[in-house]
Amino acid sequence: MRATLMYGPGDVRVIDVPDPVLQQPTDAVVRVVRSCVCGSDLHPYHSMTPEGTGAPMGHEFLGVVEEIGADVTTVTRGDLVVASFAWQDNTCDLCREGVQTSCRHGGFFAMNGIGGGQAEAVRVPQADGTLVRLPVAEDAALLPSLLTLADVLATGHHAAVRGRVTARTTVTVIGDGAVGLLAVLAARRLGAERIILMGRHKARTDLGLEFGATDVVAARGEEGIARVRELTGGDGTHAVLECVGHRPAYEQALGVVRAGGVISRVGVPQYADGDVGWRLFGRNLTLTGGPAPVRNYIEELLPDVLDGTIDPGRVFDRTLGLEEIPDAYRAMDDRSALKVLIRVY
Amino acid sequence: MRATLMYGPGDVRVIDVPDPVLQQPTDAVVRVVRSCVCGSDLHPYHSMTPEGTGAPMGHEFLGVVEEIGADVTTVTRGDLVVASFAWQDNTCDLCREGVQTSCRHGGFFAMNGIGGGQAEAVRVPQADGTLVRLPVAEDAALLPSLLTLADVLATGHHAAVRGRVTARTTVTVIGDGAVGLLAVLAARRLGAERIILMGRHKARTDLGLEFGATDVVAARGEEGIARVRELTGGDGTHAVLECVGHRPAYEQALGVVRAGGVISRVGVPQYADGDVGWRLFGRNLTLTGGPAPVRNYIEELLPDVLDGTIDPGRVFDRTLGLEEIPDAYRAMDDRSALKVLIRVY
Repeated sequence: MRATLMYGPGDVRVIDVPDPVLQQPTDAVVRVVRSCVCGSDLHPYHSMTPEGTGAPMGHEFLGVVEEIGADVTTVTRGDLVVASFAWQDNTCDLCREGVQTSCRHGGFFAMNGIGGGQAEAVRVPQADGTLVRLPVAEDAALLPSLLTLADVLATGHHAAVRGRVTARTTVTVIGDGAVGLLAVLAARRLGAERIILMGRHKARTDLGLEFGATDVVAARGEEGIARVRELTGGDGTHAVLECVGHRPAYEQALGVVRAGGVISRVGVPQYADGDVGWRLFGRNLTLTGGPAPVRNYIEELLPDVLDGTIDPGRVFDRTLGLEEIPDAYRAMDDRSALKVLIRVY
Repeated sequence: MRATLMYGPGDVRVIDVPDPVLQQPTDAVVRVVRSCVCGSDLHPYHSMTPEGTGAPMGHEFLGVVEEIGADVTTVTRGDLVVASFAWQDNTCDLCREGVQTSCRHGGFFAMNGIGGGQAEAVRVPQADGTLVRLPVAEDAALLPSLLTLADVLATGHHAAVRGRVTARTTVTVIGDGAVGLLAVLAARRLGAERIILMGRHKARTDLGLEFGATDVVAARGEEGIARVRELTGGDGTHAVLECVGHRPAYEQALGVVRAGGVISRVGVPQYADGDVGWRLFGRNLTLTGGPAPVRNYIEELLPDVLDGTIDPGRVFDRTLGLEEIPDAYRAMDDRSALKVLIRVY
């Protein structure tokens, strides 16, 4: 089959690799119908150590079950399914505690010998815990929105859930990438009536306004902080959903959060040390977040996608084929595309 | 009246100062009956910049109301009352959100022109929001336990509340000072059945065992982390209540917390930067805590103190008079006393 591998910074290739096969009785093999490129795929695109054998790419996909292992009971051949970006048994104590990304028998796609989703097919470990059947046809117009359940919508939702967002919560979202925009949508869906979106790209923040943002702040750093404080009577907001992952975004979050509030991070931090001293402690702030336990959320989000209450697939502003994946990376890297949908089949 | 002032490291004096008087209609003047020395008083005792005029000391006291301003309605002359270590109106939006230590019209005792509790009397701003009437006589044997409502018991409770402690929560408490021991008591009171106390002073950890700790780990650093992990099947505990405030304690907390768990800090951090990168994020950990909003908790804790369900006053292992306060600081500094009760009147 054809699959995407990354060999070094800027070096993405679609090549022939062996077809995936069942290895464990809990495995399934899924033929990929739609995949996409994630903002986090750009981190190795900038800085990976060149690797002669290439690294498989992609952790967001939906597709059709082609084969199932003997122990798989919840999906069967021919089912259209979406996978969470982490695979898990969804039954261990940590999964039951809602941290499926720390599953005792889990892992991540495109890592440690498990293939990536930017390919024609994927072996899915722990298929019962990882795949969710989608009650629509393979060519449905809903596919882009359904694909966001694999990561970006669920990740935005995780930010909002960990930010304890309710109708009484004022919210700042930092970052106008796909996750930031879907954090806006998720906060609105949970009832938030005041959502300030911090982002500089007008086409993106315009979509954020359609998703439910009430204010846009293009300024960053101290100026951006001052503007959010001005919009909130000097106080900042109860929740800050940090969807970037760089230290300046953390500093910005500290600056715009209200006393007693929550900084909820879903942007993978590209830094280690941050200020956790009196600035965080003195105002009883909470810092939370992490890789979204997507599998915890799919059942909750799916009905709203199916009935059109939300339309998260709007974050895809370009569609390319699998062979054009190098162009997809380039377009996202130079920000000419927000998020590229890959039509595999 | 007599009051305690600190002039520089190790230099604590009890001197004559003017009697406090009502300044605002919301003030009360309280004659102090019991006060005490806090672990946090030792920070300036080690490192304050020498100050010619002296800094008032003490933020924990109970006493008898001597005078009230015209607007005070909830306490009256002759009432025995306890004050929270921060004063607040307890009616503003931030107070109603449970962060009384960030009250819009509040502040802290022994700061910014407000006197300290290690004195014969204190002017209490926002008396209605700050003082709680105690339905016991002035000489009651309960006074030591009631005094802990001003800070240490409520602070230990805050650690447990922010740590989301319930009967299903495994808990590690870092620190065997008065706050750590009362965090053990508070976690037990909230139902925790497994409480690991990390501390090195046997007399103190023995009291921790009586307060409800199920295990004591004397080792620190990597060795201490390994021991807690060994006690918890390799996983660490759901909640870690960090009651020290130094960076090694934060590192220890990161090492012993279970995936998806909470690090709840009530030790005032004596550091700014800490690791908030993948170690915190990757396992969906939550970092929370801050100065305890004591006033939020007194009504909840008071009945259990009054009926003897809990006996937090046991953290006082020495009693001295007001004139002996310099000895109290020395005893706590050299760890010959856990916490010194000051019998003022």
